[in-house]
Amino acid sequence: KMLGRVLCTMLFVGAFPSPAEASQGHISVVLLGATGDLAKKYLWQGLFQLYMDQVSSGHSFTFHGAAQAALEPGQRLMFDVLKKLSCPPDEAPNRCAVLKDQFLKLSQYHQLKTAENYTALSREIETLLRQEGLKEAGRIFYFSVPPFAYTEIARHINNSCRPPAGAWLRVVLEKPFGHDLQSAQQLEAELAGFFREEEMYRVDHYLGKQAVAHILPFRHQNRQFLDPVWNRHHVERVEVVLKETVDAKGRTSFYEQYGVIRDVLQNHLTEALMFLMMELPTNVSSAHEVVQHKLQAFQSLRGLERSSAVLGQYQAYNSQVQEELQEAQGYVSTTPTFAGVLICSDSLRWEGVPFLLTSGKALDERVGYARVLFKNRAYCTQSGALRDAGHSQCKPKQIIFHFGHGALNTPAVLVSRNLFQPVMPKDSWREAEAQSDLHIFGQPLSDFYMYSPVKERDAYSVLISHIYHGRKDFFITTENLLASWAFWTPLLDSTSRQPPRLYPGGMENQHLLDFEMVGGGVAFTLAEPAELLNPSGQMPSDFRAIQSKFRQSPLVSAWAEDLISQLASDMEEAAVRSVARSGQFHLALSGGSSPVVLFQRLARHHYGFPWKHTHVWLVDERCVPLTDSESNFLGLHRHLLQHLRVPYFNIHPMPVHLNRRLCVEEDRGTELYAKDIVALVANASFDLVLLGVGTDGHTASLFPRSENGLEGAPTVVLTESPVKPHQRMSLSLPLINKARQVFVLVLGKGKHDITTLLSRVGHEPRKWPISGVSPSSGQLVWYMDYEALLG
Amino acid sequence: KMLGRVLCTMLFVGAFPSPAEASQGHISVVLLGATGDLAKKYLWQGLFQLYMDQVSSGHSFTFHGAAQAALEPGQRLMFDVLKKLSCPPDEAPNRCAVLKDQFLKLSQYHQLKTAENYTALSREIETLLRQEGLKEAGRIFYFSVPPFAYTEIARHINNSCRPPAGAWLRVVLEKPFGHDLQSAQQLEAELAGFFREEEMYRVDHYLGKQAVAHILPFRHQNRQFLDPVWNRHHVERVEVVLKETVDAKGRTSFYEQYGVIRDVLQNHLTEALMFLMMELPTNVSSAHEVVQHKLQAFQSLRGLERSSAVLGQYQAYNSQVQEELQEAQGYVSTTPTFAGVLICSDSLRWEGVPFLLTSGKALDERVGYARVLFKNRAYCTQSGALRDAGHSQCKPKQIIFHFGHGALNTPAVLVSRNLFQPVMPKDSWREAEAQSDLHIFGQPLSDFYMYSPVKERDAYSVLISHIYHGRKDFFITTENLLASWAFWTPLLDSTSRQPPRLYPGGMENQHLLDFEMVGGGVAFTLAEPAELLNPSGQMPSDFRAIQSKFRQSPLVSAWAEDLISQLASDMEEAAVRSVARSGQFHLALSGGSSPVVLFQRLARHHYGFPWKHTHVWLVDERCVPLTDSESNFLGLHRHLLQHLRVPYFNIHPMPVHLNRRLCVEEDRGTELYAKDIVALVANASFDLVLLGVGTDGHTASLFPRSENGLEGAPTVVLTESPVKPHQRMSLSLPLINKARQVFVLVLGKGKHDITTLLSRVGHEPRKWPISGVSPSSGQLVWYMDYEALLG
Repeated sequence: KMLGRVLCTMLFVGAFPSPAEASQGHISVVLLGATGDLAKKYLWQGLFQLYMDQVSSGHSFTFHGAAQAALEPGQRLMFDVLKKLSCPPDEAPNRCAVLKDQFLKLSQYHQLKTAENYTALSREIETLLRQEGLKEAGRIFYFSVPPFAYTEIARHINNSCRPPAGAWLRVVLEKPFGHDLQSAQQLEAELAGFFREEEMYRVDHYLGKQAVAHILPFRHQNRQFLDPVWNRHHVERVEVVLKETVDAKGRTSFYEQYGVIRDVLQNHLTEALMFLMMELPTNVSSAHEVVQHKLQAFQSLRGLERSSAVLGQYQAYNSQVQEELQEAQGYVSTTPTFAGVLICSDSLRWEGVPFLLTSGKALDERVGYARVLFKNRAYCTQSGALRDAGHSQCKPKQIIFHFGHGALNTPAVLVSRNLFQPVMPKDSWREAEAQSDLHIFGQPLSDFYMYSPVKERDAYSVLISHIYHGRKDFFITTENLLASWAFWTPLLDSTSRQPPRLYPGGMENQHLLDFEMVGGGVAFTLAEPAELLNPSGQMPSDFRAIQSKFRQSPLVSAWAEDLISQLASDMEEAAVRSVARSGQFHLALSGGSSPVVLFQRLARHHYGFPWKHTHVWLVDERCVPLTDSESNFLGLHRHLLQHLRVPYFNIHPMPVHLNRRLCVEEDRGTELYAKDIVALVANASFDLVLLGVGTDGHTASLFPRSENGLEGAPTVVLTESPVKPHQRMSLSLPLINKARQVFVLVLGKGKHDITTLLSRVGHEPRKWPISGVSPSSGQLVWYMDYEALLG
Repeated sequence: KMLGRVLCTMLFVGAFPSPAEASQGHISVVLLGATGDLAKKYLWQGLFQLYMDQVSSGHSFTFHGAAQAALEPGQRLMFDVLKKLSCPPDEAPNRCAVLKDQFLKLSQYHQLKTAENYTALSREIETLLRQEGLKEAGRIFYFSVPPFAYTEIARHINNSCRPPAGAWLRVVLEKPFGHDLQSAQQLEAELAGFFREEEMYRVDHYLGKQAVAHILPFRHQNRQFLDPVWNRHHVERVEVVLKETVDAKGRTSFYEQYGVIRDVLQNHLTEALMFLMMELPTNVSSAHEVVQHKLQAFQSLRGLERSSAVLGQYQAYNSQVQEELQEAQGYVSTTPTFAGVLICSDSLRWEGVPFLLTSGKALDERVGYARVLFKNRAYCTQSGALRDAGHSQCKPKQIIFHFGHGALNTPAVLVSRNLFQPVMPKDSWREAEAQSDLHIFGQPLSDFYMYSPVKERDAYSVLISHIYHGRKDFFITTENLLASWAFWTPLLDSTSRQPPRLYPGGMENQHLLDFEMVGGGVAFTLAEPAELLNPSGQMPSDFRAIQSKFRQSPLVSAWAEDLISQLASDMEEAAVRSVARSGQFHLALSGGSSPVVLFQRLARHHYGFPWKHTHVWLVDERCVPLTDSESNFLGLHRHLLQHLRVPYFNIHPMPVHLNRRLCVEEDRGTELYAKDIVALVANASFDLVLLGVGTDGHTASLFPRSENGLEGAPTVVLTESPVKPHQRMSLSLPLINKARQVFVLVLGKGKHDITTLLSRVGHEPRKWPISGVSPSSGQLVWYMDYEALLG
């Protein structure tokens, strides 16, 4: 009987540790999915390594392989794997052979299917320990099973397999952890019903890769060199890359649901990115500090948009899917197998630095790395030959965390010799000899200080050791996981139906997958080659904006997104023209929800906008403090101003909160604002006023059936809105009509009725204030999306 | 007699042109300094070239060499030069021999010393023309004489040598045009007394260099490619360089007065820079448009400071000067023979792009170029080998205007093949064949489209032809000259006594003259090597901050730079602590000059500072508009706030300009500020107040012998300063003393007396307001540099 065999072994092993050590207690490791691919390839070897490393630690061990198969065939399958376990080259062969024999005796197969199976397993462990007089230290359950099985297994463990009080439970979970934010939240809610946060060890095996795991320690140990340069003033770009040569063949049933972003970017590459980007915690091995800093880094990221990524799919993928998933001949997969993503942080440290994440299958080489490229700040006075010699400051400066494979074929940390000689822990990393014939990123290896691990270790061995030691900083917490999904899900949503660029695979890809930064996003460098074009995937991508007339004025109309981008471009053009003419651009902006997308577009895509010379005024304001969520100015600040560098003096919120009172007549806020306009804006004629239209025909804060601000002097007025907050401040219609240009933005189906009405009525500002907008010597342009115009 | 000889020749030459052509009239060219170096080397050859080119133009010519020497020796010297004139390789030898013979016959030597000499010359020309029945077209006077002779010669020409009405006068002037702004203004004022602006042709021979002269036409002809990339978003840097291998030996009497900046940077390199930097005129050959755009570009330049340049001097220079100028053994020259200068433009197009100008003597190679390096915006997905092949977007992208010499040894225009294939005028530039073994800036020539002139022409020949054609766009106008001097003079002044770095010369310079951008300036990359160190210049570099007591409070003391970095760190720590405690950090900052370095340090080095949660208050303010250069807030904005992302709502300038009136009592600005403090700052207790100390013991805007704000309620007060602007607003002493922490920053020798005094006196705020700073429950820390503390 298996149990008997284990008992014998326990007694035998009991002879090894000294009594003092033996008092550490017993650890039971349960590997669920013990005969699966991952278990075969990495996990059993990792457990064997753990045993070899810890056999003298004072803990005793048993290893419980589990699967759904019945005892006999499962047992056979599992022991076929165990027999093939290899001894690491640095282990004495004799000792290893003895330990392997012990390990096999300590290992046992279980069928875990029903609740009873779990109860039985727990009893067996208890019985064994009681018989041997061993104290239980803890239990490790390693989930190497498909995600749909998680909840069921988790319930069984929680119900039937918890260790007694005083001993710990560690459940180890393998990705995928959900499919997007919502599914991840749901999964986490379910797991939280069974396990406490500290009991869960979510594996991202990248955190076990030696070069990834060393990023934070490296930053810590080298901070005297890095502090001055680890920022936007010195870093030109950061690349985090995992390239694979294999394709998804044989795995398409998984891959077709996930794709490269979920499979690699959301987890592995994001984790490496965070280690590079996060502020350095005081204690880099404090799981709590690390996760807090990581979460802050997540918060600093700019949201991803469709234009943030380029996506590709190797040409054979679709037929592999058709074949493996038995899809019809006409089936077209849009699952990306390649992605290049531009990530930007708004933190003070990284603002403006591009972080490029790239991964793909069927590429020309297998390699993984994170590379920090520094700006060249030097001028080298000597000639080319000398300039390229030695430690010249004109040679590229970079730090590379080489995860593995590639030309180096080893994990490594490389630092350009013209940067600094890094401090590395001598016991675990050693300086590698330069193979002078090898080049990396265009530079000979001799240009780098290069370190590789003294002992190369497989990621899973490393992680299994960390699980044993309770090092939670090497695992993904729930908060971390959800923050990552929250970041990636919008991109997944917005690209879900986008046809990826097809690529032939391997060296033949040539420059087809090269991409470059354009505006705030990325785009493939080469135009889509005609022969690879997905015939069904043709998208009506470049609608031409229709230009016609509305109420005798020019009308620009398009789908909302194109309309906004046209409007933003027209605004930039107006601004550039105005600054060229007068050195300034006086822009009055409306509040409300429609302009938010416009503000975002301006903030992210219009680097040529002369913000330094732009004065920003408000068209109208609600009488609430500027920091109130109802404030127009707060919206403007949040979506636009805080992302730009408009000088403080050029920002003109309406003084609705003078003397900390809201729109009190005697505080004369309207007069003050009018006075500021007269003092700063030539002839009180704004260069551009942006307006919206309400469903009742109001514009600015000028409402129907109220005479306030519709006639008389060009000034600033207090008005009453029919909806809360009632009190408003607004430019008057005559002041608006003095502007050089007025753009009216109308978006959405909800505006169709008022649009239709306005197309028929004349100048009746008392009924519909917007109908009174008619610049006396300026230009009026309507920007309406198709929904507002056509319903 | 010479004249007879000329007359004969005239008749002879008169036979050449057809009668219609002959009607174009006669041109007399007078070369002053006809036997000098420049004349020997370039000018006579240029005049001969002009004659060859224009002999059939319909103009007749005479050439008048002039100098101070008497007729006989002068004549001999001059004809020795003329006999050696060479025929260009593309000229038929027979024709050239005939033309050379004619040219010699048309040339004549004159002694020009006295007023009578000039009158005689003019009469001779008139007589000749009358006798020959020729109409006078114009006279060219080429000044190839030392600058001290300019005014005298100009006066004589104006008095005695002007051509008759209907004929033009062109005077050609050679640099130096003054020594700095003032001397240039003086020279120009004198010349303006003799010549009209359109009569003066100031030579900068760089404008005659083919690759320099082609910059604007190139930008014009290739604007469809350049428009999107010729700006700060795409250009990484621009370098304009002239490196020489020769030294100043034999020329030190000139060089010692001028140095490399005046000799090369102020003129040649600046002109090339302007062609790259200026907005493109609609008509690039309109002298007027070009100069207007150039002047605008000059206006956009940021002022140069001492830190904008690195200066060097080759080691042998000083002894050459001692020898040639017969200076004493102890004479030390500080004249730079090498300079590297960082130039920045504040234009929308170029803001943030470094323009590096470099020139020097005794360097490792002779070469001149202007190089525009573009940013790499691409990610190349394929491996290194492919990445470097073909037109990969990941290879460097640059445009090089190669002036001459260097490895190419020809003028050339080079454009990286991954940029675009340039449009070049086929008649004057031809595509050069790639010599594949040659590399330029680390790239093989085959990476470039390379063009060189169909016919290589010497700069002086080109310019003499432009003078003949009246092409003023190839010459330096007075406005242009003065704008350049206005730009360079502050740097010349601020570096005039700075000892340059000594360098051995040639290849031995190694990396000694490499420099890099640091902060807003440049610095040599390598520390001053010990053997070259100026023994008096040794600085104690890493003093440890001393921590002790001053006036019973903690004192931090160090050299200024270390002190500032300590203070900035302490402030960040205080901020982080405060935000952790209360979610906010209320910081009140003083104005004045001392905190500027602190602000810069905070802006550039403290990425972890929680600015998003920081409220910035003013300790005091001058009663001027916030945009006035005297405003404390403006300084704070310029050096700190504009570089950060403090939310608009968290910035609290003092309301000294309420209702657009300055500190009017009835506007109640002080009450308003106090109200804001009470509303936002818990218990009106700032988390940190930063103060300074005046030499009179004032702090904030609390002045001695005034009771205002020294006692009573913790509030905000209006005060009177003994210096302008008199009116101030200030936190009161009791309000300051409510703070949790008060840091007092004292810098510089000038503060030593007050520091010494303060160390002895007690609490006497009416005499020395700073002595009243004593936080009731908070902490006071003094930050004093060694100069303030120790004198």
